[in-house]
Amino acid sequence: MPSEFDLIDHYLRRLGRERPDIVQGIGDDCARVTIPAGHELAVSIDTLVAGVHFPEITSPEDLGWKSLACGLSDLAAAGAEPAWATLALTLPRGPDPGAWLDAFVHGFGELAERYGVAVVGGDFTAGPLAVTVQVAGHVPVGQAAGRGGAHSGDHVFVSGSPGEAAAALAQLQCGAPDVDPHLYARLSRPVPRVALGLALRGRATACIDISDGLASDAGHIAAAGGVGILLEEQRLPVSPALAAAGETDAVREWILHGGDDYELCFTLPAELAGETGWLEALDVTVTPIGMVDDGPDVRLRDESGRIEPVSGHGYRHFDDER
Amino acid sequence: MPSEFDLIDHYLRRLGRERPDIVQGIGDDCARVTIPAGHELAVSIDTLVAGVHFPEITSPEDLGWKSLACGLSDLAAAGAEPAWATLALTLPRGPDPGAWLDAFVHGFGELAERYGVAVVGGDFTAGPLAVTVQVAGHVPVGQAAGRGGAHSGDHVFVSGSPGEAAAALAQLQCGAPDVDPHLYARLSRPVPRVALGLALRGRATACIDISDGLASDAGHIAAAGGVGILLEEQRLPVSPALAAAGETDAVREWILHGGDDYELCFTLPAELAGETGWLEALDVTVTPIGMVDDGPDVRLRDESGRIEPVSGHGYRHFDDER
Repeated sequence: MPSEFDLIDHYLRRLGRERPDIVQGIGDDCARVTIPAGHELAVSIDTLVAGVHFPEITSPEDLGWKSLACGLSDLAAAGAEPAWATLALTLPRGPDPGAWLDAFVHGFGELAERYGVAVVGGDFTAGPLAVTVQVAGHVPVGQAAGRGGAHSGDHVFVSGSPGEAAAALAQLQCGAPDVDPHLYARLSRPVPRVALGLALRGRATACIDISDGLASDAGHIAAAGGVGILLEEQRLPVSPALAAAGETDAVREWILHGGDDYELCFTLPAELAGETGWLEALDVTVTPIGMVDDGPDVRLRDESGRIEPVSGHGYRHFDDER
Repeated sequence: MPSEFDLIDHYLRRLGRERPDIVQGIGDDCARVTIPAGHELAVSIDTLVAGVHFPEITSPEDLGWKSLACGLSDLAAAGAEPAWATLALTLPRGPDPGAWLDAFVHGFGELAERYGVAVVGGDFTAGPLAVTVQVAGHVPVGQAAGRGGAHSGDHVFVSGSPGEAAAALAQLQCGAPDVDPHLYARLSRPVPRVALGLALRGRATACIDISDGLASDAGHIAAAGGVGILLEEQRLPVSPALAAAGETDAVREWILHGGDDYELCFTLPAELAGETGWLEALDVTVTPIGMVDDGPDVRLRDESGRIEPVSGHGYRHFDDER
């Protein structure tokens, strides 16, 4: 049986990478790196547990990809440029985990390669399958939005097509014979909005990733800023794949309360919201979906003009599963 | 049932702390902090799983303390000053985890308080009990030793009394009616050698924490530096509590191969090894135990002058448990 040292040596080292800011990578008690002058360090930690955060059928390649995507999405929300990651893997006891690890490292590495992210440290333990990834990056001092800066009169935007991951999960859970491949890719291989996050530096007044669902995470912006958010139902983006996946009510539920989309919800001051040419250069659609007002909370206006509160029940794994 | 947000809000916030280098603590997608100019960021991640890394009877207070101590010990080995931590907790489903979390946070907080460490982010998930802590600190550029710098002729030192934690674990596993309280404290409340690590900045040629056992971790220094290490059996420190806990052979086994001590093994050039007055100001005993030579590997000389190789089987949880 391979030891922890062998596993780190053999698998984690493949996720290392030459970067001039790495003083010490994998293979010491600590990793050591340097941060560019005038920048803040941004970090986020997330754990994915089998059967709670991903369906048991998830391939190890997809799990590798997704475990990094979650963290990169958090960095994107902070306008941070991704740089390094550490990886703590808990693997079930049993036969040689080589084939599983090969696939996991391959999926993780595919996404890491895209952004030049280097794994600088890690830990292997025996136990029920779980993956903890901490990502780190940097953002110029004063340029990160965070959740708390939205003002009444700002415009609210969302990237991409939220709800698609939830629609895929619903198809899986219903035992649908063929899950739409576009929707399934959105669940299993979410693309974090890193370039959008960088473009929003110094522009967005607030920004959050909607991994817990649009309504819930917009609610965090409202609460942190002491403001309200009024969403327009008619403006919510509905992709063709999403429209084909269910009835109107189900689609609205997925858009508002589905999780795992890793899109960004952000607010822009009116003067920037009018001319979004700088957004068009990016490879992601951005849709204006409402306005920041004096509150309270998050509300939805339907096509008849009726306004209802949107409860932010979102995607609460811990709640759901207990 | 409390949600993930409620748990983070209620428990993790207690582990936050005012530090001028924290731009954004708990409560956003990312934490953001600043690193002092001319310093490297040092990070380490470790996972503790119930029944693998700690006996099931471990109190939540002790687990909280120990889960932070592991990481602080890694920072000490890098000569880094501790600053921040992130905490990913996986808790079993069941009744309200409030009492358990109160105790865990109390134990973690006691050690964090001692070094001014602030928790800046975290994650709660449902699943089998496991704790992942990432610690971060900083060290002036060029002042960290790492494992790889030992040279032939350097003197080898170890802090404290290695083997005491293993002796406590052996007493527990034998069902001894009264585990020696001093030994048990060494297992359950290890004190990371942070001040020693800082004192070794720019002095030690190599440094490692011996959480995997003295022989195994001295072997890492030998391998990383392309050197050998000759340990003198008669110089290995044997505390009264350790001597009282078992026969000579068992004691030697605990000292060389016991884990979980979180002491430091380090090498000093001959000119520094002679005058260790700067070490006497610290609250930890430091013992010269051998010399770096041309190798190979780690060897032990007994009182008759016979030299035997010391295999570094150490404390391999992953191996042992599979």
